[in-house]
Amino acid sequence: MDGSETIDNYASKLTVVTEGEWAGWSQYPGGDPFEDLAGPFYCREDGEGRRICAFKAEKKHMNGGMFMHGGCVMTFADFSLFWIAGDAIAGVRSVTATFNGEFVGSCGVGDIVECTGEVVKAGRSMVFLRGIISNASAGGEPMMSFSSVLKKTPRRT
Amino acid sequence: MDGSETIDNYASKLTVVTEGEWAGWSQYPGGDPFEDLAGPFYCREDGEGRRICAFKAEKKHMNGGMFMHGGCVMTFADFSLFWIAGDAIAGVRSVTATFNGEFVGSCGVGDIVECTGEVVKAGRSMVFLRGIISNASAGGEPMMSFSSVLKKTPRRT
Amino acid sequence: MDGSETIDNYASKLTVVTEGEWAGWSQYPGGDPFEDLAGPFYCREDGEGRRICAFKAEKKHMNGGMFMHGGCVMTFADFSLFWIAGDAIAGVRSVTATFNGEFVGSCGVGDIVECTGEVVKAGRSMVFLRGIISNASAGGEPMMSFSSVLKKTPRRT
Amino acid sequence: MDGSETIDNYASKLTVVTEGEWAGWSQYPGGDPFEDLAGPFYCREDGEGRRICAFKAEKKHMNGGMFMHGGCVMTFADFSLFWIAGDAIAGVRSVTATFNGEFVGSCGVGDIVECTGEVVKAGRSMVFLRGIISNASAGGEPMMSFSSVLKKTPRRT
Repeated sequence: MDGSETIDNYASKLTVVTEGEWAGWSQYPGGDPFEDLAGPFYCREDGEGRRICAFKAEKKHMNGGMFMHGGCVMTFADFSLFWIAGDAIAGVRSVTATFNGEFVGSCGVGDIVECTGEVVKAGRSMVFLRGIISNASAGGEPMMSFSSVLKKTPRRT
Repeated sequence: MDGSETIDNYASKLTVVTEGEWAGWSQYPGGDPFEDLAGPFYCREDGEGRRICAFKAEKKHMNGGMFMHGGCVMTFADFSLFWIAGDAIAGVRSVTATFNGEFVGSCGVGDIVECTGEVVKAGRSMVFLRGIISNASAGGEPMMSFSSVLKKTPRRT
Repeated sequence: MDGSETIDNYASKLTVVTEGEWAGWSQYPGGDPFEDLAGPFYCREDGEGRRICAFKAEKKHMNGGMFMHGGCVMTFADFSLFWIAGDAIAGVRSVTATFNGEFVGSCGVGDIVECTGEVVKAGRSMVFLRGIISNASAGGEPMMSFSSVLKKTPRRT
Repeated sequence: MDGSETIDNYASKLTVVTEGEWAGWSQYPGGDPFEDLAGPFYCREDGEGRRICAFKAEKKHMNGGMFMHGGCVMTFADFSLFWIAGDAIAGVRSVTATFNGEFVGSCGVGDIVECTGEVVKAGRSMVFLRGIISNASAGGEPMMSFSSVLKKTPRRT
């Protein structure tokens, strides 16, 4: 879900997990090599229609100090942006234009990491978002505050 | 090289590649699980003492549109920060506190991606950097402009 | 309220407006030359203890197109940071270390501009905040989403 | 010079100073109320065609601690963006879409503050810049590193 396809396209490819700890969440297997490598990342709407993403921290996500690597946190954020954007980019190919994040905490192996956020402004060509990544296994302690601009890039013919 | 160890520690673990296309570059195998996954990333000083990082884009680094994933670009940037910081964080454990980037271009499989940058200010507890990631296989076309704050985190006893 | 004094100091200098359209709001006259120039800016807690800042857009705040100047928006944000930070910087001299903002809307002469926000993380030496500036005269339409790091700078003796 | 007019328009209004310490620099008097208030700010090309902006720090630019107010620094940066962008926005109305800055130093009354920078990428609708604000009176000590996106906004009819 990183700027590669329209939301319509990828939404049609989302697969709902039917068993195990991620039952009820959707994933996008095989669609994005770097996310296949760094993930699996999951997304869903919660009971109140709020869009949320999550994944479980494994050893492969860590840095040498066995805290989650900053690049992993930002990769998960970049994944989450396109889910949070939702209707604002529906049917339009979009790419990440800017990303700003503050690292305010971290997590370790086994923790569940979540991302929530909102569209601040959906413009004609630019969509502005912000969000929080948190450690759900530590009472929702924040890990990162971020904001981003997605740029709609209609296919030129 | 993501906030996990002092520069002194990791520098002592850097291994110089002796053959193949990366001969003369250093790498840090086995030291950082997420960089082992996303890399291999390389670093060296060029002939003029300028610190540079690089890697070769593979299919695993791509998004669904077969351009480099934004999360991969930011992971490489986060790796590069600690090499670029150099003496400013020597002997002191440091972590990424903020990261800001603008995505101005991308690259495809097989391209060589480079990162250069500089320390804007080395404070007592915060080190400010900025840099450019570029596509060396496309004449140095810029892919990302970024800035960051590293926070020195002396071990508390 | 821009990094010049401890919260304790400036709080003791805040003056509550007793009449006119800003009755009940506090201001800080004479304490900060650039804010005296760009303001007056006001602050208060709303009924639910949420910290809020506001001011009225005048012609002097505009750019050549008669929309609010980006520099004015950021000056108001920088003022607001220190009010929003509240207890997180109480008694400690602090300065703005980083500021990131996305301009998502603007306003014109006569509009009431508001800022709300929250402390994402109050660390030992760094305080992380985020907020929204909005046009209260246009139903709360967002003008800017921002985030910032304040650095506590204990006086060295 | 803040998003209000096309470069062609404002360039035609720039006035070259003919005497005093700013002789040879251009200014834009009367064109932009907030810059008239916060300035005067000046711009020129140096001998090598590099675009540079500058102004002299007065008491009105200070915070309560008599260092330059962060809002003043960002206002000067926002002014400078449109001069640095140069040809990249010639003839097209543009606005600041994002601004990110790290405050790495400050200055006091009487110091000459300079801004230099470059266009990282001039896209069809977005122009990416970065720059450095420095204290020329202190040997060029950096005060702020910044980056920004300008959005071209062709007039809709």
